[in-house]
Amino acid sequence: MPAPIDFYFDFSSPYGYLASQKVEALAAKHGREVLWRPILLGVMFRQTGVLPLVDIPLKGAYSRRDFERSARFHGLPPFNMPSRFPIPSQAPARIVLWQRARDKAAVARLVGAFYRAFFVDDIDISAPDHAVAVAAKEGIDSAAARAAIDDPAIKEALKQDVDGAIARGVFGSPFVFVDGEPFWGLDRFDQIEKWLATGGF
Amino acid sequence: MPAPIDFYFDFSSPYGYLASQKVEALAAKHGREVLWRPILLGVMFRQTGVLPLVDIPLKGAYSRRDFERSARFHGLPPFNMPSRFPIPSQAPARIVLWQRARDKAAVARLVGAFYRAFFVDDIDISAPDHAVAVAAKEGIDSAAARAAIDDPAIKEALKQDVDGAIARGVFGSPFVFVDGEPFWGLDRFDQIEKWLATGGF
Repeated sequence: MPAPIDFYFDFSSPYGYLASQKVEALAAKHGREVLWRPILLGVMFRQTGVLPLVDIPLKGAYSRRDFERSARFHGLPPFNMPSRFPIPSQAPARIVLWQRARDKAAVARLVGAFYRAFFVDDIDISAPDHAVAVAAKEGIDSAAARAAIDDPAIKEALKQDVDGAIARGVFGSPFVFVDGEPFWGLDRFDQIEKWLATGGF
Repeated sequence: MPAPIDFYFDFSSPYGYLASQKVEALAAKHGREVLWRPILLGVMFRQTGVLPLVDIPLKGAYSRRDFERSARFHGLPPFNMPSRFPIPSQAPARIVLWQRARDKAAVARLVGAFYRAFFVDDIDISAPDHAVAVAAKEGIDSAAARAAIDDPAIKEALKQDVDGAIARGVFGSPFVFVDGEPFWGLDRFDQIEKWLATGGF
């Protein structure tokens, strides 16, 4: 079995959401698994000095239009700009890390549920109670999910993962590695596809 | 005949270069012409507060890798990061504006020649003498091209075009409008293709 695809994403990232709906099928087509790796873009933005997309003059207005158009283009449910955006995404990120260690196969569905809650149903998943409620709908025990958010070991694991991602050069979401080769954005899925099919170009 | 596609680009933009090699074929396939509209990214960056891509921590290193990989992916000549980058692109931009008014059909070839000089052959086309020499190889009279660079009317026309582009929301290169719909980046050529084929989605 070849190595899994590393899929780095922030729950507050619109393009991370769009890409999350596409990456499993892409990986499966080429006999790969997806390693779901939540990150915290705020930490990266402090490294790069970059502002959140929607806060940049001109670029912000375009981006809001592009999120909606891109969701239509990719055949996804109507994109709904959250009332509060961006959000800190520690709560859902920690639940994902915890769940990944318990049941790797169920993580894709959980990630999809969090993302759709935020970008389709406008649920503020930064609030622990909301994050736990979304996870509960996916069959995850509420008390255990709530405990995961406050677990010092999981907090530390997320911090280490974010630092490790930066050390690998990750600066945005989604960010994918295929056998060490870095690809930023849903926009690079065409190149990822060719890389997977040919082993590099 | 439907309206031409507006193709905004800066000669100092790697992705503008890559897209310039693709846009004529895309437009022709859908019975459209390309209106080549040189802009000056430096002016836009003052509006958005954004740094040139290669100067951003983490993003810079990735971008250099992505320029080369994307050129390979799109079947273009090896991308060669210019010794001096970014450059102010007034000289080639003004020659293009002047030539567009004289012979619209010849502009695509001239743009291609400037871009390849810069991103393949490492010729600093910001220098008027170099820009004129590249244009001369495309059959353009050297004295006339040199005069165009210093022509106050053309300087003013370029300034107006850049201001007009910002007023339309242009903040990067390449930037395309299809019947008023804005698309940023070579990465949106798949959506442009669908928009042209279907009239919107």
